[in-house]
Amino acid sequence: MTTGLPFDDIRNLIKTMPMADLESAVKAKEHEAQLTKPPGALGKLEGLSEWAATWQGHYPPRTTRTIVAVFAGNHGVVNQGVAAYPQAVTAQMVANFQHGGAAVNQICKTFDLGLKVFELALDQPTGDITQEPALSEKDCAATFAYGMEAIAGGCDLLCIGEMGIGNTTIAAALAHGLFGGTAEEWVGPGTGVDNDGLKRKADALRRAVALHRIHLNDPLEVLRRLGGRELAAMAGAILAARMERVPVLIDGYVATAAAAVLYKMDNSALDHCVAAHCSAEPAHRKLLDKIGKQPLLDLGMRLGEGSGAAMAAGIVKAAINCHNDMATFASAGVANKEA
Amino acid sequence: MTTGLPFDDIRNLIKTMPMADLESAVKAKEHEAQLTKPPGALGKLEGLSEWAATWQGHYPPRTTRTIVAVFAGNHGVVNQGVAAYPQAVTAQMVANFQHGGAAVNQICKTFDLGLKVFELALDQPTGDITQEPALSEKDCAATFAYGMEAIAGGCDLLCIGEMGIGNTTIAAALAHGLFGGTAEEWVGPGTGVDNDGLKRKADALRRAVALHRIHLNDPLEVLRRLGGRELAAMAGAILAARMERVPVLIDGYVATAAAAVLYKMDNSALDHCVAAHCSAEPAHRKLLDKIGKQPLLDLGMRLGEGSGAAMAAGIVKAAINCHNDMATFASAGVANKEA
Repeated sequence: MTTGLPFDDIRNLIKTMPMADLESAVKAKEHEAQLTKPPGALGKLEGLSEWAATWQGHYPPRTTRTIVAVFAGNHGVVNQGVAAYPQAVTAQMVANFQHGGAAVNQICKTFDLGLKVFELALDQPTGDITQEPALSEKDCAATFAYGMEAIAGGCDLLCIGEMGIGNTTIAAALAHGLFGGTAEEWVGPGTGVDNDGLKRKADALRRAVALHRIHLNDPLEVLRRLGGRELAAMAGAILAARMERVPVLIDGYVATAAAAVLYKMDNSALDHCVAAHCSAEPAHRKLLDKIGKQPLLDLGMRLGEGSGAAMAAGIVKAAINCHNDMATFASAGVANKEA
Repeated sequence: MTTGLPFDDIRNLIKTMPMADLESAVKAKEHEAQLTKPPGALGKLEGLSEWAATWQGHYPPRTTRTIVAVFAGNHGVVNQGVAAYPQAVTAQMVANFQHGGAAVNQICKTFDLGLKVFELALDQPTGDITQEPALSEKDCAATFAYGMEAIAGGCDLLCIGEMGIGNTTIAAALAHGLFGGTAEEWVGPGTGVDNDGLKRKADALRRAVALHRIHLNDPLEVLRRLGGRELAAMAGAILAARMERVPVLIDGYVATAAAAVLYKMDNSALDHCVAAHCSAEPAHRKLLDKIGKQPLLDLGMRLGEGSGAAMAAGIVKAAINCHNDMATFASAGVANKEA
């Protein structure tokens, strides 16, 4: 590992990512074929079991310890009038997570998921991206590294989510910086800005992308200049999960934008990730297309805070329980398909 | 209630169905607006809480006791070579449910759902619909009444599923009998018949519909002539749930065909039902369109046995837990949207 610029550490890490465990994948396929059901009858659930085994790197797959990691940050760009709620709501919602009052808390309780909340210097909003980079390289790399702590203590499935007033603007800026197009294509109502707010969002995006344009060929520069702390931390968490063989469920538009940074660095970097759901934020589906992901659920949710990923974790748990605990044709004495 | 033909009892029951509890619906809407999230941000989950309250007829909605009812029957039409598995598999799978080895058992365990299995005279397959009515009116009405037992003991959410070798042919026959069209539009691979099997299914359908044609203007006649025991029992269970104010999650193609009989009798008869998922069985979406339902999930499942409805029950539980247990803006000290 070089001891040069902090970003070089991230670049080096990506070069050593573990790849798919094809042996576990084959075992999953072989076992699936013996279960008491017609081949393929569990649809996407079958693929989820195989995916979990492949990226956990062992067979059978497990979901005994699923963690929902929610990263919270504040953003200088809210000065541009892009958000429907005051910035103080970020810290208030973190307190709400800690007291068990948010949607994600109830979903975690329903599906027996652990919740970890990471507060990222909420009293120090990042730089306003229309005026300056959101973060210095050092801050960005340190936050990325902090995000890697999400899996400390071990887990076998990680859900990635966020909270941050103004961060659908930041997600749109990342998407625009990474994939081009127009500002209008990438902005949406977020928590519910009106038409004037939407115009301010697009305008802020245009100005931010123009300001940083010459640096946007490097995905990590896009992350630090147009991103934010929770975005950097989510990218770190996703990469750490890959290194430690933990499959990841990516939540909505903002989490997907963070993931997209890794995808642009190496388009196999998200092979251990499933897109949990398609958010109602209009540009989410397009961003999922850009990173080559089909969403598992489409429930019209647009809350963030890992809520969509946590819903999908319930589906994954059911899938893995079917795979691991169903009887086989032989064990149950059920006749298989007529030859 | 008349003491005439048994079907008249069912017709009379439908006339006395309770309607939506709009007071509970309003309470759900009002409470939803106070929860710590942007309005609408939980998407379809919000609608599910309101639906549950509306059809449970009380506020707040509950999911403390969810039952998955699986009805199993055998079909004379398998003599026409329409099924990929031998008829003995119906009883073998019932034993598998009872021993906890099937997919639906694992999904029930994952989401803490109760499972009830109803075995319907498996040693007496119904009449071959290409030759005779599946059931006499008396048998059909008795089986319908037996299905009403699904909610005995009480529950606050009912998932409807089935098992029966040959019953995708029966479902297609019901759909064809109720909604017209061509045999080919309504048949599909079921548990996995090959192309020749598919042709035999379509051919059996055509012959069955031709034989019973003059009786098909009465949905209950369609049910007894082209249906089967588990279909009659599912229709009974859905109506019983309505009478007792229990919302229903309808599983796949076969369960939807049973529900469609009630819809044709009174197109408000399924207002207490949500279509749990869209099956991979090709005609399911079309049948859902006919009864005016949008599926909640689309996971490519096509197993039956209530598995898709049980998956959806996990989603409904999470939705209701969010609705009932989230903090409000006032209780959490979170600032609401800027005016």
